[in-house]
Amino acid sequence: MSASSPLYLTLAERLAVLIKSGTFTAGDRLPSIRQTSREHQKSITTVLEAYRILEDQGLIEGRQRSGYFVKPPEILKGQFAAAQKRPATPIVVEQSAIFEAVMDSVADHQVVHFASAAPDDSMVPHAKLSTISHAIGRRLGPVALRYTPPMGHRVLRAAVSRKLLGSGIDAGPDQIITTQGATEALLLALRATTKRGDIVAVECPTYFGILNLVRDLGLKAVEIPVDPVTGLAIDDLERALKKHRIAACLVQPNFQNPLGCLMPDDHKKRLAALSARHGFTLIEDDVYGELSHHGPTPSSIALFGGDVIHCGSVSKTIAPGLRVGWVVPGQHLAEIKRLKTIQAPWNASMSELIVAEFLEAGGYDRHLRRIREVYLAQCTRLREEVIRHFPAGCQVSQPRGGFVLWLEMPPDFDSEVFAVRAIARGISVIPGSLFSSSGRMKNYVRLSCGRVIGERETAAIATLGQLAAELMQR
Amino acid sequence: MSASSPLYLTLAERLAVLIKSGTFTAGDRLPSIRQTSREHQKSITTVLEAYRILEDQGLIEGRQRSGYFVKPPEILKGQFAAAQKRPATPIVVEQSAIFEAVMDSVADHQVVHFASAAPDDSMVPHAKLSTISHAIGRRLGPVALRYTPPMGHRVLRAAVSRKLLGSGIDAGPDQIITTQGATEALLLALRATTKRGDIVAVECPTYFGILNLVRDLGLKAVEIPVDPVTGLAIDDLERALKKHRIAACLVQPNFQNPLGCLMPDDHKKRLAALSARHGFTLIEDDVYGELSHHGPTPSSIALFGGDVIHCGSVSKTIAPGLRVGWVVPGQHLAEIKRLKTIQAPWNASMSELIVAEFLEAGGYDRHLRRIREVYLAQCTRLREEVIRHFPAGCQVSQPRGGFVLWLEMPPDFDSEVFAVRAIARGISVIPGSLFSSSGRMKNYVRLSCGRVIGERETAAIATLGQLAAELMQR
Repeated sequence: MSASSPLYLTLAERLAVLIKSGTFTAGDRLPSIRQTSREHQKSITTVLEAYRILEDQGLIEGRQRSGYFVKPPEILKGQFAAAQKRPATPIVVEQSAIFEAVMDSVADHQVVHFASAAPDDSMVPHAKLSTISHAIGRRLGPVALRYTPPMGHRVLRAAVSRKLLGSGIDAGPDQIITTQGATEALLLALRATTKRGDIVAVECPTYFGILNLVRDLGLKAVEIPVDPVTGLAIDDLERALKKHRIAACLVQPNFQNPLGCLMPDDHKKRLAALSARHGFTLIEDDVYGELSHHGPTPSSIALFGGDVIHCGSVSKTIAPGLRVGWVVPGQHLAEIKRLKTIQAPWNASMSELIVAEFLEAGGYDRHLRRIREVYLAQCTRLREEVIRHFPAGCQVSQPRGGFVLWLEMPPDFDSEVFAVRAIARGISVIPGSLFSSSGRMKNYVRLSCGRVIGERETAAIATLGQLAAELMQR
Repeated sequence: MSASSPLYLTLAERLAVLIKSGTFTAGDRLPSIRQTSREHQKSITTVLEAYRILEDQGLIEGRQRSGYFVKPPEILKGQFAAAQKRPATPIVVEQSAIFEAVMDSVADHQVVHFASAAPDDSMVPHAKLSTISHAIGRRLGPVALRYTPPMGHRVLRAAVSRKLLGSGIDAGPDQIITTQGATEALLLALRATTKRGDIVAVECPTYFGILNLVRDLGLKAVEIPVDPVTGLAIDDLERALKKHRIAACLVQPNFQNPLGCLMPDDHKKRLAALSARHGFTLIEDDVYGELSHHGPTPSSIALFGGDVIHCGSVSKTIAPGLRVGWVVPGQHLAEIKRLKTIQAPWNASMSELIVAEFLEAGGYDRHLRRIREVYLAQCTRLREEVIRHFPAGCQVSQPRGGFVLWLEMPPDFDSEVFAVRAIARGISVIPGSLFSSSGRMKNYVRLSCGRVIGERETAAIATLGQLAAELMQR
């Protein structure tokens, strides 16, 4: 795979990605030469050449008269460890001292960034956004720079409404409130459904921004394990519901951050039923939902009923600096509207108008197809580098969407020491300790593969592997 | 004064504005013909013609060999009533039911708007902002659409830092945090200096957005009267400080919303000294500070020491839809940075870059001079229309900056009924009840003169006057 042009994969590269990412696993028979030729619209000669390259790379083997098969991995390690099973007790969420240092490092241009889960510049359709911005400026002039109306610009709410149909959410523009990114949406959702001292269920591990909000609102958290394949462990949630009065459950069913896993529909259905039965709110954070590596955009839990507040944004799919997000409050509409009017009554007006037009008529679907393919390639590439450079005893997640990897190190590994040493070497990573308040993620590390993986990044991974080995030898 | 071209005043119009707005008051001798000719760079003939027009309008009179004098006003009513003196008791802030209705009406394009304190479209330098936006897009491409760094883009913080020197604030870029408008700045300031149940001092009347935040944070408010000329009544604050443990005092010293008054420097000095002596934080909301009708931008309280958190934005001076504001936290920097990182870690990136460039190299000072003059003209014009059309027993404020008017009606006047009837007639105003939690502003009304006053607006004021008369007859 060429690091310098990740957007245009050769057929061999494309097939390699499918193998390395697990679409085809060891022992699988590859499609026939003829079939591959048809599916990828390549000549028989090109396909034969691609298969030869894959054979040379040791990824596949030809078997007499049977076709081509995926070889057992030599460097790929086993599936990521199962969810940790420990008793879940509501705890006060503490903020790690390392958090601000990590946040500050993100702004440092000297640093090789694996910390921030931000799209690479090349994934941002800036030329198109710029064209749209000019057109809106010409058409609306100063009108585009007024205060936004309550609930946000209607054109944006209408565009989001149509887009959400793809996730199985049936919400008209008047059931959607636009926000300054998903963080504000999550904050509004939590404020509308909880009060100080309440208990909420959170995933373990979960995005540290969620833990920050939980702590900030004076809530207690019950940490529910996340299965690396199927997401939130619903049995564990059910047990916690029997023991505690839980006001809300924060969940990322689609391409969970940091695990990248996808909750199956029957689990979503169970979760919705639990919400209805136990009378708690499901706060769904779906910022990665459209970044599936294979297959269609997965559905929202809202498709299956229950008391669901859906939160999303364009930060991972279009551009984070726009600060455009939304909340679909369901039965909490009036309260969330009220809270929004108090804490941040207006949003960035031009951003809203630009996103509305890009979603409606800017080639959003084509853009999405392109970046999905690239993120798949980048995750696969980074995963491969990690496997190559990290010492034995480390495992790495296999995300099904999004663009972060989650590394499991030996139990006594101190990811904060690791992160501090990495920053000293000019490399930013996020220590697992930020993803849990109970200290149980201290031996994990999150790496973002949002940025394109070039030579500098590859070298940085080698350095990280070396740092990890040093730490593990002590 | 021509309503259709408010930007280009004739000399007569300019002088009329100075008289009506109170720069020259009854009995004042106008500058000599020669002096006026020199100051305004107009020929003697033009000045003579202007003075003749003013004489015809009954605004001035020529006295033999003595020059021209401002005539006693015939329709201008007395100075606005003095601050209300009532005992200040901490109260729980309640939200008026009419608040959401008023907010919703702002989005209705059928309505004649006197509610929203927003700049007229013609006051927004959109062509310049658009040019800057294109240039940034070309220069930075997708880099302009990344997550903003912690504390906001440095170029913006540097530009704000230089700008604030004009208000006497000496804060480097690293002492400034940019926010999504002043509302977020105020929220951060309150959160950093108070906890639930604390008492804060607020002005009475004050901007309802401040009361919303106070209520939302579970704080109690002591309402301190505002003198229509000198602002917050410092003696009253001092009395309240002796009775209550006050954590913070929210104050708009410069062109207070809704009164438009300006706190003299010696009052600011006293306030700063009180803050130091009693150990409370002054949270200064200075969004109108640069919109002085006459004279230079007044100073921040921070110039005089004390524990001051300064909050500002470009919503009134450049464009509200940009959502660019800032907080200068003083000694609360670390805590406000921490809170910002949790509740809204990132701002609208393009907006920040555009504002930075407009402030530094976009002709901001020239723009400011222009809009100050227009707002003076608009306030004067609207004030005149109010005086012409409202029944006896109504009084109207004489703002020294900004663009809102504050109407005092007879004591039993119900401004909420008035506002509801006005909306029914397609006119939006804000009832005084929203500006106080103690119900003592029920007989007041706020009118914004941010929008250009044309025929439709003039007719609407006549309608409002009629509605007021009807209500007062009952």
